[in-house]
Amino acid sequence: MIEYGQFFDDAILRLKAERRYRVFADLERDAATYPVARWHRAPDRIEDVVIWCSNDYLCMGRHPDVIAAMSEAASRYGVGAGGTRNISGTNHPLVQLEDELASLHDKPAALVFTSGWISNLAAISTIADLLPNCLILSDQLNHNSMIEGIRRSSAKRQIFRHNDLAHLEELLAAADPDQAKLIVFESLYSMNGDIAPIAAIADLADRYNAMTYMDEVHAVGLYGPHGGGIGERDGVMDRIDVIEGTLAKGFGTLGGYIAASKSIIDAVRSYAPSFIFTTALPPAVAAAAHAAVRLLKDGKEWRAQHQRQSMLTKHALSAAGLPVMNNPSHIVPVLVGDAELCKTATDMLLERHNIYIQPINYPTVAKGTERLRITPSPLHTDAHVVHLVEAMVDVWQTLKLPFVAEPKIVAFRREKEKETEEARCTFPEFKKAAE
Amino acid sequence: MIEYGQFFDDAILRLKAERRYRVFADLERDAATYPVARWHRAPDRIEDVVIWCSNDYLCMGRHPDVIAAMSEAASRYGVGAGGTRNISGTNHPLVQLEDELASLHDKPAALVFTSGWISNLAAISTIADLLPNCLILSDQLNHNSMIEGIRRSSAKRQIFRHNDLAHLEELLAAADPDQAKLIVFESLYSMNGDIAPIAAIADLADRYNAMTYMDEVHAVGLYGPHGGGIGERDGVMDRIDVIEGTLAKGFGTLGGYIAASKSIIDAVRSYAPSFIFTTALPPAVAAAAHAAVRLLKDGKEWRAQHQRQSMLTKHALSAAGLPVMNNPSHIVPVLVGDAELCKTATDMLLERHNIYIQPINYPTVAKGTERLRITPSPLHTDAHVVHLVEAMVDVWQTLKLPFVAEPKIVAFRREKEKETEEARCTFPEFKKAAE
Ligand SMILES: Cc1ncc(COP(=O)(O)O)c(C=O)c1O
Ligand SMILES: Cc1ncc(COP(=O)(O)O)c(C=O)c1O
Repeated sequence: MIEYGQFFDDAILRLKAERRYRVFADLERDAATYPVARWHRAPDRIEDVVIWCSNDYLCMGRHPDVIAAMSEAASRYGVGAGGTRNISGTNHPLVQLEDELASLHDKPAALVFTSGWISNLAAISTIADLLPNCLILSDQLNHNSMIEGIRRSSAKRQIFRHNDLAHLEELLAAADPDQAKLIVFESLYSMNGDIAPIAAIADLADRYNAMTYMDEVHAVGLYGPHGGGIGERDGVMDRIDVIEGTLAKGFGTLGGYIAASKSIIDAVRSYAPSFIFTTALPPAVAAAAHAAVRLLKDGKEWRAQHQRQSMLTKHALSAAGLPVMNNPSHIVPVLVGDAELCKTATDMLLERHNIYIQPINYPTVAKGTERLRITPSPLHTDAHVVHLVEAMVDVWQTLKLPFVAEPKIVAFRREKEKETEEARCTFPEFKKAAE
Repeated sequence: MIEYGQFFDDAILRLKAERRYRVFADLERDAATYPVARWHRAPDRIEDVVIWCSNDYLCMGRHPDVIAAMSEAASRYGVGAGGTRNISGTNHPLVQLEDELASLHDKPAALVFTSGWISNLAAISTIADLLPNCLILSDQLNHNSMIEGIRRSSAKRQIFRHNDLAHLEELLAAADPDQAKLIVFESLYSMNGDIAPIAAIADLADRYNAMTYMDEVHAVGLYGPHGGGIGERDGVMDRIDVIEGTLAKGFGTLGGYIAASKSIIDAVRSYAPSFIFTTALPPAVAAAAHAAVRLLKDGKEWRAQHQRQSMLTKHALSAAGLPVMNNPSHIVPVLVGDAELCKTATDMLLERHNIYIQPINYPTVAKGTERLRITPSPLHTDAHVVHLVEAMVDVWQTLKLPFVAEPKIVAFRREKEKETEEARCTFPEFKKAAE
């Protein structure tokens, strides 16, 4: 007689024993105060916390124009698509969004999914399976959704060392020249914050006649003159066959997409079960995403403010002697190197300092590289940064975590006190929303 | 030298040759007039059409309270969750929704995903993989998302003939008694409209010590005293281990869920990559879904109206001599039996009569059983039904499709003309919305 319950109980106990059991913080975002949110600490205990680990990187989730777009579309079209794309679910805001996304990446066509996760699953598996005897070359640090797409296909797969052009070339050179090849990688790796050598990968793809598939999930909206991502910033979008992105991070809502040639888009649209057999994105969500994409097409200032606050946070944490992991992007990883301490540090930040940062442990990152992953937004003020640095120094001292240099926190605070205005006050649309 | 473009072009040509190429109708739902919508026939040509194939079965997508819930939540919380469930994305409306769904199915816990498709993929694969040496017994007509979940697991799989208890028992009896077993099936099969013998399947599960997983996607909101589905209607929810549902059909918006024991929910939450590595459902969508679930908990009248219009449609089409495929549910399939004719019939309904019904062809249904799948809603008025019947008769006559009886259309129309009020006028909340 099998006792089924025990297998699920055991599975949970295993995670607890490995200190990998996760408790979700019940947060109440507040469109007027974000990144400050309400934390439901217990049913009768609600506290303000500053969110420092969201991927709503540009705060589009609370932008008044984006909120208005969702509300207006909900009133006008209703709250759902009502069907799969083929069976009554293709709604006009979705069609318009797809046109906008194609134009953002300067591609002939685009296709929207209900998440970035699904877009990678659907697109990678379908593209690989339509190519005869395909070999996928996959960066070692690719996201789970890309790995699931690869796994779902019947293609062979080889992993190249992270961002290692020599290794990628070695694998390409060793492969049968007549075999179809698909290079799958990210433009910006979200846990390290490092950036792929896109042009050099495209050169290799040209030399060895491979197709390229690039995930820009952590870059769209954030980089490039119009928010087209690192590909746009580096002027190489046209050298990549398929660009994949999300509507849930820089664009602040929900959904994912690919942009590519008309025939690739048409083939994925027509063959991918994970696209075909599911309800389409609601018109209200599509309209909100569309508003965010459009805002950020003209969002140079906002992107600059995002970079400013990210760099300020990095510099302030480094100046305070904390082990910031170096990278050229907006992501601020701070090394802890131990799962248990990482969890304790974030618990202490939350409970003692009302700062919410999620610990990043194995399997999301390798053991020994456990870290705090901090994501400043344009609306994290200089005062928020001061608060963060002081709290981190306190936690580091309390837990006797190693500093990499002498903390210089006091000097930073004094310098900041000289500056009068909060950064966000220069952006009237958010000021209005906060009033 | 590989020409990559050709493989995608060829893939499309293959579909066109098999008459399986799909063109999505660009529809503009209108919350004030639904099921009447705007069809973007061409960029400069917009026409009114009656949607007769949506899975927004109960028109919750346009219910004013549901729309208000989305707009209010968007204003209050913003338009996105801002992160995965673990990393800042667990929002309070989502937690509340999960509590409500658990209670709807009388289970200790529930877990929300961004679609029903993902909930099946995540839950079936994770549950099966946590059971040692699991054997999955899967109904032959299970939905693609369930098949993907089975395929994603490393469990062995056996298919039992559709709703065939004898065959299921045969497979159970033949299996190793010490092997873990999971029976996976739907309560209501959406293409045929037939219903599973749930109690008898639960009896078999008891007898052979198997777990049960039931997809109620086409029944939640629609059946049972509180909209808990066929399981609630038949009083057997407690006999099923895992109930899966969607928020995108009866509940009118987007998302999916499972309801089960605390340890099953915790295990899926903790182990399923397709749940872990993707952005959570936006608070505004969760709030809309929650409003719909709550409305339908008290929605007896509305469900009755839905059944009334479905039965009326069936009877009227049958009376007109059209080959309605018999079943005990709200789904109205009408047999054509040929892919090309099926497509031509729906094109003609759309272009000549402004009636939008998508043809259902292979691979969604078996070859030779191609059909029109009609889904009446409580807001399809008696006048809409008359219009549908007349249009169908015209198309059947024009295309020389076989009637199963002498058409009695004129009598039906005369009878209807005696009735004065449109059905929806008895439901004040929709009346208000339509003004
Ligand atoms: C690199 C990468 N790709 C895809 C995704 C999935 O995107 P979404 O959250 O829209 O499902 C994520 C994170 O969630 C990601 O980090
Ligand atoms: C039986 C069944 N399960 C699951 C799904 C997927 O649900 P969703 O549209 O929410 O992804 C569908 C249809 O889309 C379905 O018909």
